[in-house]
Amino acid sequence: MAAPSSCKVVLAGTIAKSLLEEVQASLKALQHKPKLVGFLANSDPAARMYADWTGKSCTENGFDFELREVDKEELEEAVIAANSDKAVDGAIIYFPVFGTRQDQYLQQLLDISKDVEGLSHKYIFNMYQNVRFLDDAKTQKSILPCTPLAIIKILEYIGVYNSILPYGNRLFGRTITVVNRSEIVGRPLAALLANDGASVYSVDIDNIQHYTRGEGIRMSRHHSVDTDLKVEDVVPKSDVVITGVPTKSYKFPVELLKDGAVCINFSSEKNFDPSVKEKASIYVPAVGKVTIAILLRNLIRLSQNREGKPASN
Amino acid sequence: MAAPSSCKVVLAGTIAKSLLEEVQASLKALQHKPKLVGFLANSDPAARMYADWTGKSCTENGFDFELREVDKEELEEAVIAANSDKAVDGAIIYFPVFGTRQDQYLQQLLDISKDVEGLSHKYIFNMYQNVRFLDDAKTQKSILPCTPLAIIKILEYIGVYNSILPYGNRLFGRTITVVNRSEIVGRPLAALLANDGASVYSVDIDNIQHYTRGEGIRMSRHHSVDTDLKVEDVVPKSDVVITGVPTKSYKFPVELLKDGAVCINFSSEKNFDPSVKEKASIYVPAVGKVTIAILLRNLIRLSQNREGKPASN
Repeated sequence: MAAPSSCKVVLAGTIAKSLLEEVQASLKALQHKPKLVGFLANSDPAARMYADWTGKSCTENGFDFELREVDKEELEEAVIAANSDKAVDGAIIYFPVFGTRQDQYLQQLLDISKDVEGLSHKYIFNMYQNVRFLDDAKTQKSILPCTPLAIIKILEYIGVYNSILPYGNRLFGRTITVVNRSEIVGRPLAALLANDGASVYSVDIDNIQHYTRGEGIRMSRHHSVDTDLKVEDVVPKSDVVITGVPTKSYKFPVELLKDGAVCINFSSEKNFDPSVKEKASIYVPAVGKVTIAILLRNLIRLSQNREGKPASN
Repeated sequence: MAAPSSCKVVLAGTIAKSLLEEVQASLKALQHKPKLVGFLANSDPAARMYADWTGKSCTENGFDFELREVDKEELEEAVIAANSDKAVDGAIIYFPVFGTRQDQYLQQLLDISKDVEGLSHKYIFNMYQNVRFLDDAKTQKSILPCTPLAIIKILEYIGVYNSILPYGNRLFGRTITVVNRSEIVGRPLAALLANDGASVYSVDIDNIQHYTRGEGIRMSRHHSVDTDLKVEDVVPKSDVVITGVPTKSYKFPVELLKDGAVCINFSSEKNFDPSVKEKASIYVPAVGKVTIAILLRNLIRLSQNREGKPASN
């Protein structure tokens, strides 16, 4: 019988632990206890579960959390009130509310100084443009969206970022496939990875886009091009494969992986069969706990920005 | 005009420095000052230069060094005498002496307890077999040949080894091309890298061999197979290219490198044109200073083995 494979399974909880220790240290240095407000205006059980989970994570880690259950039609006023409420450090709206474009209006309504999820246009713009600070003096760091940043923290933890390279170039030489091109996770993630120097293939149902900073990563930020490439062209040369397909029946074609690839799944569904462990060097089956840790980290950052503290890393 | 490329040039001196600091710490813990003896039995200016360089490195770092210049015909007796001389911790013979198979006899004549270069058959056997200790109790670490080990230390320093993976599997997922298959550096290096989990292409003038531990690195040590592959097949998929071609006119075909590859040259000739910096993420132009640091590290290890100290990492 063959020896077992050598895949190292890394659980999100392990990575979250080290991030939460950093969060604790930053929390102690603050002059006040940060408060997160959650707005629940629907009866979606998944949204309520996420709300309960954020609440539990907040209180367990020394943050205040208040769930404000409001009617859909009252949400706009409730968000406006929170925007100017000095007692509120951060807020999160559990979507879908209307399930239409009106939800984007609500998201953008939240003031950027309270946007703990990093979904405001200003933050998204800075992310795509590779702008890391809010001010010219570089004292206030821009907030990054939780799940893409969680995946970056995972890649740092598992050694895909090379810390001997200069900050901002630490993925130079890495080829990464991202299966998902949503505006919330997949596309921002591809952009962030390419901004850090990677060659990124962004896969969705229509086509594959290639995000890079050009040969020798000479450009200051990524550009992307449409390609005629297929999954079977890009996966065999990918050092890292990151999936986020929210479909129970979808399974990533593990047989295409190169031996020793790093595999990360951020979908709530299991995009990889257990056979992924026969080929991968490192497998991260889920990311949720890291995303929550990043949410708290963003809340710290918003609180620091409000207290006028200089940004730390 | 295009922005400059983003290649980080890492000098051997920088890496040697951190190794020499470790050597200093280990030196302080020893009960005696280790002594290295060099045997010079030829008039080759390169051999004398190497002898002078080892002597200088020894004295600068707190080791005793004694150069014993002997006639070729007296070398055998001189080595036998050093083998049983309690005042000698390590010895090195500057080759070529006869320039024939007799040189191998002289190399093997040196007792393994004094073989600072790690060239004794026992050490070489352990290296190829992936045996890390001399004894069953695992208190005495086997000595590795200086230049291959120097290159491994360089790969650790520049982040090619992934320290989140278990010791012995830290190159799983990496593809490495080694251009040189000498018995002193190229072949042992390919074996060491494959033993640590890499997929290694070993290039010499005749063919390309592939060294791996099999799919999922299930085997406990490498095996190698001859291939019909060409340099243009293996270089574009290599994360790391290591060259050691001792020919002034030889230049590695930089145009085949994948963007962001890591390039290391261990030849005394410059195997890479300066244009390598247009494509590489990290370039290490020479390794000599690290090799000397490893020589001193091996001397420490031999001294520890003699004092019966348990092996540290």
